Amino acid sequence: MKLLEDRIRKEGKILSADILKVDRFLNQQMDVALFEEMGKEFRRLFADEKVTKILTIEASGIGMACLCAQQFSCPVVFAKKAQTKNVSGDIYTSKIMSFTHGREYDILVSAAYLRPEDRVLLIDDFLANGEALRGLIDLVRQSGATLVGAGIAIEKAFQPGGDTIRATGVRVESLARIASMDPETGIVFVGE
Amino acid sequence: MKLLEDRIRKEGKILSADILKVDRFLNQQMDVALFEEMGKEFRRLFADEKVTKILTIEASGIGMACLCAQQFSCPVVFAKKAQTKNVSGDIYTSKIMSFTHGREYDILVSAAYLRPEDRVLLIDDFLANGEALRGLIDLVRQSGATLVGAGIAIEKAFQPGGDTIRATGVRVESLARIASMDPETGIVFVGE
Repeated sequence: MKLLEDRIRKEGKILSADILKVDRFLNQQMDVALFEEMGKEFRRLFADEKVTKILTIEASGIGMACLCAQQFSCPVVFAKKAQTKNVSGDIYTSKIMSFTHGREYDILVSAAYLRPEDRVLLIDDFLANGEALRGLIDLVRQSGATLVGAGIAIEKAFQPGGDTIRATGVRVESLARIASMDPETGIVFVGE
Repeated sequence: MKLLEDRIRKEGKILSADILKVDRFLNQQMDVALFEEMGKEFRRLFADEKVTKILTIEASGIGMACLCAQQFSCPVVFAKKAQTKNVSGDIYTSKIMSFTHGREYDILVSAAYLRPEDRVLLIDDFLANGEALRGLIDLVRQSGATLVGAGIAIEKAFQPGGDTIRATGVRVESLARIASMDPETGIVFVGE
């Protein structure tokens, strides 16, 4: 998606060969008009899939997921990263490793909000090692819902997550796929 | 806001005299169409305030904040609850007590995203003890931005947060104000 690629090039900050900061428009500060356009693009890509629910993970994917859900006229469910007092009853859980935070998380979602009849689209801001996505896929499998695919804003295609998950038969659509990046020379997108 | 009050009455679960679960439509599972209507109501309430930025706190306020931001045509910034690798440079921080999680948090926001020329509307899903809102107000004060007020989905008006913050001169608009609640007899909203 050219709109997103241009924005990454203009406002993203490459801190190292594998750390890209996009907190000016994607997380921390969120450009809702951009999210709306991204939502329309995901809607176009998954138009025939009869999506009934969007699943994401807290926190930074939530905004994008909500603007996407507007296009699909369906609710968003977000997986939480730790058990809190107010989550009760039947839940699905999975374990993921966060490389950003350097530790393992439990993620969980109430069973009430992922039903066998649901057709679920996963939405997240980043795909790198694929841990978060793998965890979300696991939650959907546990629920018996149909997994339609995953919509990602930025895929670091030089890391193994995307290919590994596609190899399991899951459809993954990333709006910007980074082939390589370098603080000196900038970003190369896949296909350039 | 009658739409929200009706929804709370229909789908909220009162677990005790002070715990209300609204995770079927407000957090965990999020009804984006409802958020859109809430955004329109906040826009109506704060129409003359020339809002340039919406500030919320992760995680469950983010979705609502994004749908509100659509109405104001401005970006959303969310305060994070702990320092991560990818936050760098100048930040504003504050400490808040989370009664839900039973511990104190640092909250932080990059200084780049709250500027002295900003006119900031705070958005959050719940107001009870007012800790989160107090922390967000502190971040805005540190930045030198103008605080326009706060838009809250559900205020537990029987807890002190709302009145305490209004007493400091901050405009707080809550779409549903709960006077009391009880697992047996249900909810009474302020004014009923």
